[in-house]
Amino acid sequence: MIQVGFLTYLEDKLIKVEEKMISYSSGYHPDLKAALDHLMAAGGKRVRPIISLLMGTMLGADEEKLISLGASIELLHTATLVHDDLIDGALLRRGNPTLNSHWTPAATVLTGDHMFAQAARLAAEIGSTEAMSIFAETLSIIVNGEISQLFGKSKLPSREEYYFRIYEKTGSLFALSAKAAAMISPADRKFIQPAENYGKEIGNAFQIVDDVLDFTGDQERVGKPIGNDLRQGIPTLPAILYGEQYPDDDVLLACLNGTVTEQEADDLIHRINESGVIEQALEEASLCVENAVLSLTDFPEGREKDALEKFGRILLNRDL
Amino acid sequence: MIQVGFLTYLEDKLIKVEEKMISYSSGYHPDLKAALDHLMAAGGKRVRPIISLLMGTMLGADEEKLISLGASIELLHTATLVHDDLIDGALLRRGNPTLNSHWTPAATVLTGDHMFAQAARLAAEIGSTEAMSIFAETLSIIVNGEISQLFGKSKLPSREEYYFRIYEKTGSLFALSAKAAAMISPADRKFIQPAENYGKEIGNAFQIVDDVLDFTGDQERVGKPIGNDLRQGIPTLPAILYGEQYPDDDVLLACLNGTVTEQEADDLIHRINESGVIEQALEEASLCVENAVLSLTDFPEGREKDALEKFGRILLNRDL
Repeated sequence: MIQVGFLTYLEDKLIKVEEKMISYSSGYHPDLKAALDHLMAAGGKRVRPIISLLMGTMLGADEEKLISLGASIELLHTATLVHDDLIDGALLRRGNPTLNSHWTPAATVLTGDHMFAQAARLAAEIGSTEAMSIFAETLSIIVNGEISQLFGKSKLPSREEYYFRIYEKTGSLFALSAKAAAMISPADRKFIQPAENYGKEIGNAFQIVDDVLDFTGDQERVGKPIGNDLRQGIPTLPAILYGEQYPDDDVLLACLNGTVTEQEADDLIHRINESGVIEQALEEASLCVENAVLSLTDFPEGREKDALEKFGRILLNRDL
Repeated sequence: MIQVGFLTYLEDKLIKVEEKMISYSSGYHPDLKAALDHLMAAGGKRVRPIISLLMGTMLGADEEKLISLGASIELLHTATLVHDDLIDGALLRRGNPTLNSHWTPAATVLTGDHMFAQAARLAAEIGSTEAMSIFAETLSIIVNGEISQLFGKSKLPSREEYYFRIYEKTGSLFALSAKAAAMISPADRKFIQPAENYGKEIGNAFQIVDDVLDFTGDQERVGKPIGNDLRQGIPTLPAILYGEQYPDDDVLLACLNGTVTEQEADDLIHRINESGVIEQALEEASLCVENAVLSLTDFPEGREKDALEKFGRILLNRDL
């Protein structure tokens, strides 16, 4: 879990989130329980529940409801990852073997479905049909994004298309984490929209940094080869910025179509890394974080607001 | 859709249910839309929405809410079928090609996920956190049933175990259809429990008849070979009753372990069909329907109550 000094006071609540996530898993089939334990142990940084907890606490929301909300969102997130790994045929995630790597596709599909069901149960516990509604809508957005990616054309998207994609993939669930926390709080409803905006911008920044790490990170830490997305035909921000700068580099388009040799892909990824677009992409991520922080202007001052501001900045360094 | 004289007055409402089921599908990826259209065209008898509509109308529930409920339950049902077909590798359902037969597993997983999301959105529209909660719980029960079946031991279950399985697989969602309709109605809460019981018993009867048809139905109508479940190692009521009667028929156990020739399986299925257990199984289904009808004793008299009673009896003949 998260190791950040200024967030240690959240630790107790995050433990409750973890407990909540598995609260419905007793009484189920032992093999399913083993799969869930495996997924829980693989962990994750629980950044989405952290956002819900900070936003909700700042606005005076009930702690129990925030814990159900955080657990529900994190379960939904994990469920989409489980199905995602199956779809990608990924064998590692966060350096750990995926469920998919040692289970049958059938068991993997059902484990994901089970987690969707548990996420829905926890969301219902919150007792807000309004929150439930945006919860379901967000799942739609995420799944539609995955479908678009699956059937996507092999061409370089515009920056605008990229932003829409990362909103579907990541920004939308971060937005939900913050927005739902504001919704279930007793605070004025004027906070809902800026809360959503905070989450969305932080989520987009998070995804951009993730996409940059795919180019710059070391294979061992990320658990997959450098430039993995591009090798799989998925263009992310560094590739898009590079394409804007070097529209005549035919290898880039060929790479999206899967018609390059490994050596050509290696060379292209090297050229992208050396072209200055990595810095440009990180600059874009910084702008997202600045927008996120700006949305907090009218929120109540205090420890939580400070933490939400710092949290965004710290995400940029992935210093978690 | 359903072709039963005494239910024609439901036709308009059932058309609204169908419209509701696709109400969120515009704006999504064209390939996804094509998949959803395919699934909608393949149809289904919409027995679950019929139960919700009859039960809810009898108890004075709001029509709009009942339509959302019916659409939500039918979408949830269809989503589980889509994942189920993927898991079973089934190529036909109701005599029509499954999604799975011409799509990749990835697209099939995501189409199911999309339908889960839409089902959740419609369920949230009803505006009852209590209904939402049992909705999520039912999805858990269904998925857990599928997981148990996937990891199930290759032995003959007891009758009791069989009843628990068909409750997970079918009875639970029928129970939800009736129970949630009672919950969102303005009627006395004393009706909730017997409504649930009605749905559960009808669902169990429905599943038993389905399991019997697997032995007796003609291949063309059912869309799969006779005794398909048993050939796949899944023991249903006729096989269980036969096993009680002929505990020394080793071919039955061997069949569950997948260690028989096709000829041996053919012969076993013939023996089961001739042993009298088909009639016994249908007698069990009749008892379930009688229990269902009994649960309606204290409900308001009228067209809907009559229809719910007839509906159960008609299910036995699969005369839909």
